[in-house]
Amino acid sequence: MHDLRAELVDLHRELVRWGLVAWTAGNVSALVPGTETFLIKPSGVSYDDLRAEDMVLCDLDGNQLEGTGRPSSDTAAHAYVYRHRPGTGGVVHTHSPYACGWAARHEAIPCVLTAIADEFGGPIPVGPFAMIGDDSIGRGVVETLRSSASPAVLMANHGVFTVGNDARSAVKAAVMCEDVARSVHLARQGGPVVPIPDAAIAALHHRYQHAYGQASAPADHEEHRA
Amino acid sequence: MHDLRAELVDLHRELVRWGLVAWTAGNVSALVPGTETFLIKPSGVSYDDLRAEDMVLCDLDGNQLEGTGRPSSDTAAHAYVYRHRPGTGGVVHTHSPYACGWAARHEAIPCVLTAIADEFGGPIPVGPFAMIGDDSIGRGVVETLRSSASPAVLMANHGVFTVGNDARSAVKAAVMCEDVARSVHLARQGGPVVPIPDAAIAALHHRYQHAYGQASAPADHEEHRA
Amino acid sequence: MHDLRAELVDLHRELVRWGLVAWTAGNVSALVPGTETFLIKPSGVSYDDLRAEDMVLCDLDGNQLEGTGRPSSDTAAHAYVYRHRPGTGGVVHTHSPYACGWAARHEAIPCVLTAIADEFGGPIPVGPFAMIGDDSIGRGVVETLRSSASPAVLMANHGVFTVGNDARSAVKAAVMCEDVARSVHLARQGGPVVPIPDAAIAALHHRYQHAYGQASAPADHEEHRA
Amino acid sequence: MHDLRAELVDLHRELVRWGLVAWTAGNVSALVPGTETFLIKPSGVSYDDLRAEDMVLCDLDGNQLEGTGRPSSDTAAHAYVYRHRPGTGGVVHTHSPYACGWAARHEAIPCVLTAIADEFGGPIPVGPFAMIGDDSIGRGVVETLRSSASPAVLMANHGVFTVGNDARSAVKAAVMCEDVARSVHLARQGGPVVPIPDAAIAALHHRYQHAYGQASAPADHEEHRA
Repeated sequence: MHDLRAELVDLHRELVRWGLVAWTAGNVSALVPGTETFLIKPSGVSYDDLRAEDMVLCDLDGNQLEGTGRPSSDTAAHAYVYRHRPGTGGVVHTHSPYACGWAARHEAIPCVLTAIADEFGGPIPVGPFAMIGDDSIGRGVVETLRSSASPAVLMANHGVFTVGNDARSAVKAAVMCEDVARSVHLARQGGPVVPIPDAAIAALHHRYQHAYGQASAPADHEEHRA
Repeated sequence: MHDLRAELVDLHRELVRWGLVAWTAGNVSALVPGTETFLIKPSGVSYDDLRAEDMVLCDLDGNQLEGTGRPSSDTAAHAYVYRHRPGTGGVVHTHSPYACGWAARHEAIPCVLTAIADEFGGPIPVGPFAMIGDDSIGRGVVETLRSSASPAVLMANHGVFTVGNDARSAVKAAVMCEDVARSVHLARQGGPVVPIPDAAIAALHHRYQHAYGQASAPADHEEHRA
Repeated sequence: MHDLRAELVDLHRELVRWGLVAWTAGNVSALVPGTETFLIKPSGVSYDDLRAEDMVLCDLDGNQLEGTGRPSSDTAAHAYVYRHRPGTGGVVHTHSPYACGWAARHEAIPCVLTAIADEFGGPIPVGPFAMIGDDSIGRGVVETLRSSASPAVLMANHGVFTVGNDARSAVKAAVMCEDVARSVHLARQGGPVVPIPDAAIAALHHRYQHAYGQASAPADHEEHRA
Repeated sequence: MHDLRAELVDLHRELVRWGLVAWTAGNVSALVPGTETFLIKPSGVSYDDLRAEDMVLCDLDGNQLEGTGRPSSDTAAHAYVYRHRPGTGGVVHTHSPYACGWAARHEAIPCVLTAIADEFGGPIPVGPFAMIGDDSIGRGVVETLRSSASPAVLMANHGVFTVGNDARSAVKAAVMCEDVARSVHLARQGGPVVPIPDAAIAALHHRYQHAYGQASAPADHEEHRA
């Protein structure tokens, strides 16, 4: 489990590197394989100071089992997703700026780039406005993702939640979500964008989920889609 | 006091890291606990060259008490805030670019993201146009913050001032101010944004100020709001 | 050949440094001088983890000759370009964000800055929408570049492909493509841009291709233009 | 003179750090104090590889006196400025992206932020469209700056030239030029900006040029304004 803790520290630094977070405003969690527990960032700790031993262990109801710090204030949302979305091994939450732009308008990101078809299989959907601290965010995430191929959801007036079969896949989805949120924003600022035909979106998504990456590291998310 | 000086050096580097300053155009000050003095950046010194011993000690009228360099040209504004806003332990000034965009239009940043409700408790207000070098900036900052829950103010045609119960809290507010100035700018470029109901803003702000972070590090600003 | 492998690792890191790629979404290949083979990035490997020995050797039909990992899923496109565009020594593919903005609108970047005349000799053209995985992307790249002085093409709804007489030149073209995609985007957001007369574009391009850089490192692309 | 060469290497890296240049597209030169010669970047060399001994020594007609590499293709423009603008000790040229946005529209950056009044004393002016390689750029820079308090000029469809009483001051002006080009761009994207009264601009500029910085490091540009 130490390796998983260390990987979580690294993955939080990826959030900083790819410009997804300001100050301490984002978090990654990982299911501990073979258990009904997950590790999550302690609340309000800077990414520089974060150490493997600081990661907080929780059960799937979000109760703290181990760790000296208080877990992320988004712990209930992460726990809800693990309980209600089988196959989820990692969850990420950010307020990445371009994605927040779409979220503040309650507008899905249209699938007008092959990169969106590849990773998200269609538009990146918008979830409901939900208060922080109870199950309402987690429920909004799970229900929104149920009717979508996307591993990312834009929570209204809030930010991004992503899922993956492990924490690294969820971080990748968060990085790609902000990247395409930006590219499509820029595209539309300059005039009308050209849609991609639905059949091409489906073909691109299928190929990417099955042929991209190394055989020993199959494409993320491919198993637990609706 | 050496630790506070070293922390100020680190905090100035946070201004660079989070993209809040160009060249030498931003400064952080910290009240020396238990005294009526504060430490502030010397004027025009680059963030790379800044050392703990360079920080200039001033009294609350802005008079230089110690330090070989001349203090920041914004010293009078910092001093005014410490004199007139009880509980302030740190002050930050930047010209961060997205926030300056709002400031050049004399337009408050509307509270359309949960992150704004959390940290600022409502819109980030605009203060008056004021000349640099005397009390008029400090007075504008204090008067604007008096009628707001926000620890940040956009000074018209100028830039950002933030306050905190210590210097780190004020830097955090400056980082978050630029982050949300950007997200809301991007949101509005793409079309109309959806407001957050006032009751939800109040609930989010209350929760964040009381439940976020570690017990040993309570949320910033919670004590000295009007 | 080890030196070429090491250079490819460095060049992939240039893609990250100049903001052209998110996560693993971009790749560089290089013709092995004096052979009919090229080296290309393995699929889905992070830029941090990439080592010289990971680069995959392929023939000009895109068949893997050496290397333990699976080659980039864009290998067929790279191979097509080497087969059909004599003089090409390097190929780069990115989804750089400002360029993708133009690509999602199927809009060429107009030549309104001297930097565009210098490097691209006119507008940066748009290629067709083409599916990933077979020859259609490579064919679209080659056909589009045939009628243009530009070493870069914006593939519709997809991203950027660039060519050079070596891999470094192709990376330079990718960096400059994103740089000017951004500058012209910003220019047009503020109002109408002023065109550069065609005669000036031709003169700037000729000068840059012959007088820029060191004598031992002649300007890129100057030999194999139509 | 070795110290000046080493400082020029450092200053070129500041161009990268502050996002003013892509690949090798920018250069800094410095008058050698007490001589009629200046040092300038060799053409097309990457900023990473640049060493003190690579800087090329030229006379004020732009003839190369020392150095194994070919000097920057902008050398004639730098030389013209040194010959025709007394008191100039450093010149910088960039294609920084927000400034290029204004330059492609032939539009001056209006003085709507105190930072612009401080550093530039009014709008940042636009110079003529001029071909690269002969005196026309240098002449355009000198003539445009003659009727302005600004140390920066936006050359039409091209980029930025800045001057200073030394190379560091010219780099500072280039950094601030891009910073305010961005802030004012962002401001205007959101709606109309509020002007600063002319009397306030003059007072801000006078104060900044005389009271900012350390006594041993007087404000840049204060001596050789018209």
